[in-house]
Amino acid sequence: MLYHVAMTVNLPADMDPAVAAQIKAEEKAYSQALQKEGVWRHIWRVSGLYENVSIFDCRDHEHLHEVLMGLPLYPYMDISVTPLNRHPSSIHPGDQ
Amino acid sequence: MLYHVAMTVNLPADMDPAVAAQIKAEEKAYSQALQKEGVWRHIWRVSGLYENVSIFDCRDHEHLHEVLMGLPLYPYMDISVTPLNRHPSSIHPGDQ
Amino acid sequence: MLYHVAMTVNLPADMDPAVAAQIKAEEKAYSQALQKEGVWRHIWRVSGLYENVSIFDCRDHEHLHEVLMGLPLYPYMDISVTPLNRHPSSIHPGDQ
Amino acid sequence: MLYHVAMTVNLPADMDPAVAAQIKAEEKAYSQALQKEGVWRHIWRVSGLYENVSIFDCRDHEHLHEVLMGLPLYPYMDISVTPLNRHPSSIHPGDQ
Amino acid sequence: MLYHVAMTVNLPADMDPAVAAQIKAEEKAYSQALQKEGVWRHIWRVSGLYENVSIFDCRDHEHLHEVLMGLPLYPYMDISVTPLNRHPSSIHPGDQ
Amino acid sequence: MLYHVAMTVNLPADMDPAVAAQIKAEEKAYSQALQKEGVWRHIWRVSGLYENVSIFDCRDHEHLHEVLMGLPLYPYMDISVTPLNRHPSSIHPGDQ
Amino acid sequence: MLYHVAMTVNLPADMDPAVAAQIKAEEKAYSQALQKEGVWRHIWRVSGLYENVSIFDCRDHEHLHEVLMGLPLYPYMDISVTPLNRHPSSIHPGDQ
Amino acid sequence: MLYHVAMTVNLPADMDPAVAAQIKAEEKAYSQALQKEGVWRHIWRVSGLYENVSIFDCRDHEHLHEVLMGLPLYPYMDISVTPLNRHPSSIHPGDQ
Amino acid sequence: MLYHVAMTVNLPADMDPAVAAQIKAEEKAYSQALQKEGVWRHIWRVSGLYENVSIFDCRDHEHLHEVLMGLPLYPYMDISVTPLNRHPSSIHPGDQ
Amino acid sequence: MLYHVAMTVNLPADMDPAVAAQIKAEEKAYSQALQKEGVWRHIWRVSGLYENVSIFDCRDHEHLHEVLMGLPLYPYMDISVTPLNRHPSSIHPGDQ
Repeated sequence: MLYHVAMTVNLPADMDPAVAAQIKAEEKAYSQALQKEGVWRHIWRVSGLYENVSIFDCRDHEHLHEVLMGLPLYPYMDISVTPLNRHPSSIHPGDQ
Repeated sequence: MLYHVAMTVNLPADMDPAVAAQIKAEEKAYSQALQKEGVWRHIWRVSGLYENVSIFDCRDHEHLHEVLMGLPLYPYMDISVTPLNRHPSSIHPGDQ
Repeated sequence: MLYHVAMTVNLPADMDPAVAAQIKAEEKAYSQALQKEGVWRHIWRVSGLYENVSIFDCRDHEHLHEVLMGLPLYPYMDISVTPLNRHPSSIHPGDQ
Repeated sequence: MLYHVAMTVNLPADMDPAVAAQIKAEEKAYSQALQKEGVWRHIWRVSGLYENVSIFDCRDHEHLHEVLMGLPLYPYMDISVTPLNRHPSSIHPGDQ
Repeated sequence: MLYHVAMTVNLPADMDPAVAAQIKAEEKAYSQALQKEGVWRHIWRVSGLYENVSIFDCRDHEHLHEVLMGLPLYPYMDISVTPLNRHPSSIHPGDQ
Repeated sequence: MLYHVAMTVNLPADMDPAVAAQIKAEEKAYSQALQKEGVWRHIWRVSGLYENVSIFDCRDHEHLHEVLMGLPLYPYMDISVTPLNRHPSSIHPGDQ
Repeated sequence: MLYHVAMTVNLPADMDPAVAAQIKAEEKAYSQALQKEGVWRHIWRVSGLYENVSIFDCRDHEHLHEVLMGLPLYPYMDISVTPLNRHPSSIHPGDQ
Repeated sequence: MLYHVAMTVNLPADMDPAVAAQIKAEEKAYSQALQKEGVWRHIWRVSGLYENVSIFDCRDHEHLHEVLMGLPLYPYMDISVTPLNRHPSSIHPGDQ
Repeated sequence: MLYHVAMTVNLPADMDPAVAAQIKAEEKAYSQALQKEGVWRHIWRVSGLYENVSIFDCRDHEHLHEVLMGLPLYPYMDISVTPLNRHPSSIHPGDQ
Repeated sequence: MLYHVAMTVNLPADMDPAVAAQIKAEEKAYSQALQKEGVWRHIWRVSGLYENVSIFDCRDHEHLHEVLMGLPLYPYMDISVTPLNRHPSSIHPGDQ
């Protein structure tokens, strides 16, 4: 099932750059592993902002919750979650 | 280039059902043609609402503008447009 | 899977009372059938307002979408949908 | 009487993990005791967020107030309270 | 139990003045009857606006709901309901 | 003249409990003195929140301003002020 | 006593121009009479919008309420009212 | 030319009182000098809040900008600026 | 002096197309005349929406007000006005 | 392609003035270099606020993203991005 998730990252401006770099690296590895599994189906950067729009394909709400709670950057994020359906006009079989 | 477009449709409750059905059919045909061209890359229905989230792949802003202004349902829509970049963590080559 | 759905009904003040009564009766029958199936798990009235808060237990997003789109009062509603998980503190086995 | 309570928890990102774990454990014990009493009737996790939606069954507003003010996580919470009625369409005798 | 209720009245500008006057007269009678019962404990006009702030003393949420749903002006109102407790600093015995 | 004042208190979560208790005690004494004078006519606690709704009866705006600025908790408060009139439907002579 | 009142006028786009002109003329006459009395102390147009910002000097809230309710354009207005004090830095004796 | 400027001051609650008093004194002197010049035409205190509403009469936007940027309290302020015109109903020659 | 003006056009969906076309033609002629005068310095279309962002160069607020009030589409517009200064970093002499 | 970017700068009030001056100088140099390239086409100061409105002319979203992420003041900014089209009424050839 698909979930539209918008994430805004608010790292404190005075955070130790090394700490920030470390968390970002962990976030990237975490995200790419899930992308390979097909769970994190899409991730796009919102132009000009430290925000992303992602599409997750999860078994159910619990699965989504685990995935998002596991994000290394989670404590610094504002997140909104919107469940998505297959659109009746969609021609993409896989876009359910 | 990718654009995230959220569309909310507000058809008047007292609209003639036949007129509504006609416009929706035109909208579906219009959308599917653009999907085949690869312009309308994704369209998902927001669960429970008469809203969709779409990803458009357009040459530039003008192209996006033409596409959206041509929507048969446009006069009944609230629309928000957000430009998207390829995310540095994305493993999907085509997701730029 | 559980979905928290808040519904606000805005019937036009000048609607024919008979028409309004008819739609409300259809809505009640529709709701009670789904409650018997266990799909519409809870429905509460927000005190003082023509709003309800409901908990739906659906197979997936598509199922929820069908259920909500079938509401006779749907054209007159503002709806918000929030996916719910079982809470780690919950002692209610059935509250997943 | 039923109250719909939405709680968002904002723990400081730099809080000592041990302190955070301690408060969360107290919160869980506090919640489960009230659930056993039937006061905290439902608690669900909002998927992907550190938020819950709960339904409380209290004698009156004072009782609700005591219960919420006693939450160990209270100082870190944004809370909204909405009184609920039994819905005329509800088939659940206990859902008043 | 006390409820703070804010009511904004939006009568259509083109409403027949006689109809408007009739509804307002019914509203006044309805309100004054409830005030005599002690249910509608306070009603104040918000200076400069067609809004009132009221304090209701009701047995429970159901009672409040009946009272508000019975307002002749209800179809033209935006309403917000906030449950109130006795304040620990209050010296007014009756202000629970 | 009556003023509706809504006050939300945001004490820092890491404030020294003794300091917090001290300010709260001063606030209570300050409020009760004004209640005895009839200036602070009503104070109610918003159920479940560290907020109150109060009705002040002041000579004029300056008087209200002095009263609110003198609140020991003022630096930690979000405040909104709404002037109130006697309502034409009110049967309470004193509720002007 | 001074009140800051912001007024936004929303005349229906399809209103009979003659009716609109008539109401505006009545509004102007009404306003200028109050200005001569010193009640309507200031009226400024918000540049580019059909809005004004006004400062009223009224005996009390009731007086303000009468004045605003008497505005011919009242049914087409969104209004916000803010009580004002003399500012401790003001050098204008009359600006209380 | 006139500008309506609303200023909200948010001094940190834990600011050294002597520092706060110093900045406020500088702000008062700064304001009164501009009032004597006729630039700061009006300043009123919003009743009950640490906010003011002011009317500035400046040569142009640059002049306004200099004036506001020079406010000693500027770093602690939320400011909104609205250009004002002479109102066609105004009888005050000087209120352009 | 420069003003940033954002305009959203909300033509009724059931407006006679001929009437709409006529007003749009008048709007275009009106705008182009002002552009030639250098008053309407920039006009851009917001991609995907019936909105524009414009930069006006006017003598003063009155001039801006006349210009905007003269817009044929004005009755169908939501408008926001923001005064602009020359930016200290700007290298464009004419961008004051 | 053009992008409308609004930037609000929120420097901590207790920032070391020398550090602030340094970052501002870097920001100015960064901006002026991009202005010379024609990428940062316009930059205006919002009168009275530490905000600017800018028009960027970028190859594509990625280019815009690089430019904005490179802003020395970026960590202290709230930013909104709006893609712009050439307006059909524009007489300025270069304003696409």
